[in-house]
Amino acid sequence: MNTLTVDLGDRSYPIFIGAGLLGNSALFTPYIKGRQVLIVTNETVAPLYLQQVKEALAGYQVDEVILPDGEAYKDLTTLNLIYDALLQKQHNRTTTLLALGGGVVGDMCGYAAASYQRGVNFIQVPTTLLSQVDSSVGGKTGVNHPLGKNMIGAFHQPQCVIADTGTLNTLPERELSAGLAEVIKYGLICDPAFYQWIKENIAALMAREPKALAYAIERSCQDKAEVVAQDETESGIRAILNLGHTFGHAIEAHQGYGQWLHGEAVGTGMLMAADLGWRMGHVSSEELRELRSLLQASGLPVVGPLNMSADDYLSRMQVDKKVLDGRIRLVLLQRIGEAYMTSEVPKDLLTQTLLAGDKLGTA
Amino acid sequence: MNTLTVDLGDRSYPIFIGAGLLGNSALFTPYIKGRQVLIVTNETVAPLYLQQVKEALAGYQVDEVILPDGEAYKDLTTLNLIYDALLQKQHNRTTTLLALGGGVVGDMCGYAAASYQRGVNFIQVPTTLLSQVDSSVGGKTGVNHPLGKNMIGAFHQPQCVIADTGTLNTLPERELSAGLAEVIKYGLICDPAFYQWIKENIAALMAREPKALAYAIERSCQDKAEVVAQDETESGIRAILNLGHTFGHAIEAHQGYGQWLHGEAVGTGMLMAADLGWRMGHVSSEELRELRSLLQASGLPVVGPLNMSADDYLSRMQVDKKVLDGRIRLVLLQRIGEAYMTSEVPKDLLTQTLLAGDKLGTA
Repeated sequence: MNTLTVDLGDRSYPIFIGAGLLGNSALFTPYIKGRQVLIVTNETVAPLYLQQVKEALAGYQVDEVILPDGEAYKDLTTLNLIYDALLQKQHNRTTTLLALGGGVVGDMCGYAAASYQRGVNFIQVPTTLLSQVDSSVGGKTGVNHPLGKNMIGAFHQPQCVIADTGTLNTLPERELSAGLAEVIKYGLICDPAFYQWIKENIAALMAREPKALAYAIERSCQDKAEVVAQDETESGIRAILNLGHTFGHAIEAHQGYGQWLHGEAVGTGMLMAADLGWRMGHVSSEELRELRSLLQASGLPVVGPLNMSADDYLSRMQVDKKVLDGRIRLVLLQRIGEAYMTSEVPKDLLTQTLLAGDKLGTA
Repeated sequence: MNTLTVDLGDRSYPIFIGAGLLGNSALFTPYIKGRQVLIVTNETVAPLYLQQVKEALAGYQVDEVILPDGEAYKDLTTLNLIYDALLQKQHNRTTTLLALGGGVVGDMCGYAAASYQRGVNFIQVPTTLLSQVDSSVGGKTGVNHPLGKNMIGAFHQPQCVIADTGTLNTLPERELSAGLAEVIKYGLICDPAFYQWIKENIAALMAREPKALAYAIERSCQDKAEVVAQDETESGIRAILNLGHTFGHAIEAHQGYGQWLHGEAVGTGMLMAADLGWRMGHVSSEELRELRSLLQASGLPVVGPLNMSADDYLSRMQVDKKVLDGRIRLVLLQRIGEAYMTSEVPKDLLTQTLLAGDKLGTA
């Protein structure tokens, strides 16, 4: 088992990474303050892992709420099911919420914990690669609104994160790829040595070799933790974690949430950012083509949806949270391993990238 | 105009107290970061003061959302009207929410600000005595759930509070009295000199003399700010601010929210706490009778609802947020001017207080 500490002063917490951690009672108990635990999971994950976690929590008042599966349910109505369960089972301020599932479960459970009685403890048990490398670190929680993704939420840090690589054996292929998009992102934005490692080990990652996965998760969390520690509430440097996200959110929103997986949209969005960086003279044509190959080797799409016009992208990008006073701000690459935020985007080059179609990233 | 600073480190903020502040543009503008403001108010307050505040905000993108009036609407459904307005009008992270109204408007607007895009700025413009002395300080925001009051919320501090005593001239008599209950509370829990002042000036307060009101608001906010500064997230000493609230919540919940005003229920709840304190040998019979007279002079009820049995109280008190692991914890009086929290409540004396009927507080 690998242990990593996210250093946030009195809100610091550990991430435990390894195989077979789910049933390890000793990992959970130091992080449970009271006698009550509410496990929040979904209908896909519950049959696989709920029983095991409940057994690890023997001796506590353990209640559960099983949500419908999917981003479409990440809303206030579904969130209310968590509040209902907490109140029906009379959970008090010392209760601990436990998120067992992917990013949607983690975001909703975390936000319920942030807001129930103005804040209670929670533990993250992410069961997808994406949630293990992304939502494990950063404390972002929340739900969607019909008019925008993640528009309602809070920053709320967990007591600990337990990332069991064993759960990745039940993960659908597409979701493994979607998780790899975020892994690649860390290399791209701040860690060229890790990017190199990913290129060399992409076959092992796709074959789900436990050691390779554990290393990729640990290094990703480490990279993210370093960025977050510098900027807990996203006022500056942290924005680089959104590489590919402004493009990606536009794709997700235009296609309808759930059609493209978040990681797939971010993967293509990163390629767009790199393509634009190449047009701006920052990224070399070799680097650009290598990224395209790596995304392909990861099973990710390398062409945006063919039904989207440049205006379809631009209008969606205008309502992104990164927009300040009407200007589009984008995270772009200075080179592989170094990202920056800018609101100085040459409109003509941006349009060329958006219209590149299957020439995207081919330099 | 009196100015008071609530000292919370980098979340410190000023409270401005005086007559005719609503239209004073110079008070608002230093606390508005971006170019967008959403005024949250209700159908009762809007016709009285909305126009004046909008004029003070000339030059900004000012949008408004007018909520139905009343505690019954302090829920997730009504909260969503605020998110809808923010997103329909494309408010971004630099927006400022402005709460114009009483406690319900302030709690909901504050919670919308805490959660919109994971937190934006807000300004409180409380227009009732209760909200001027209570929700102005402390950063508590939130909404009710059908199974419990204030069960969903966050701690979120405003940028500034503007308490215009002029707005109290349109306040119904019952609401003035309800506000005075909280004013009296500060004297009771931590400020015997202020308690003495209130006894001497209750007629002036009931006659809405502006100077007396401004002094009472300032001193109340000062007292509350001192307690809150010691304990921002209510883990200890801050609990004394809940004097009378556990009894009061039981009354409100049993009668149906809105039947008894919050301040009325808290007033009677404080008399219950004092009555119990007298039975426990802490409060003198003279002090107890004086408090009863002061509450009467403030136009407040001094007898609980006659349809409530001791069990009706006790079962409601069990689900209060102050309950930890099944034990009722109560704020009681050591003497006038000194409150304490205890979970050692003699059951028989508590029952005598709950069954005292119109003998409550008569020693």
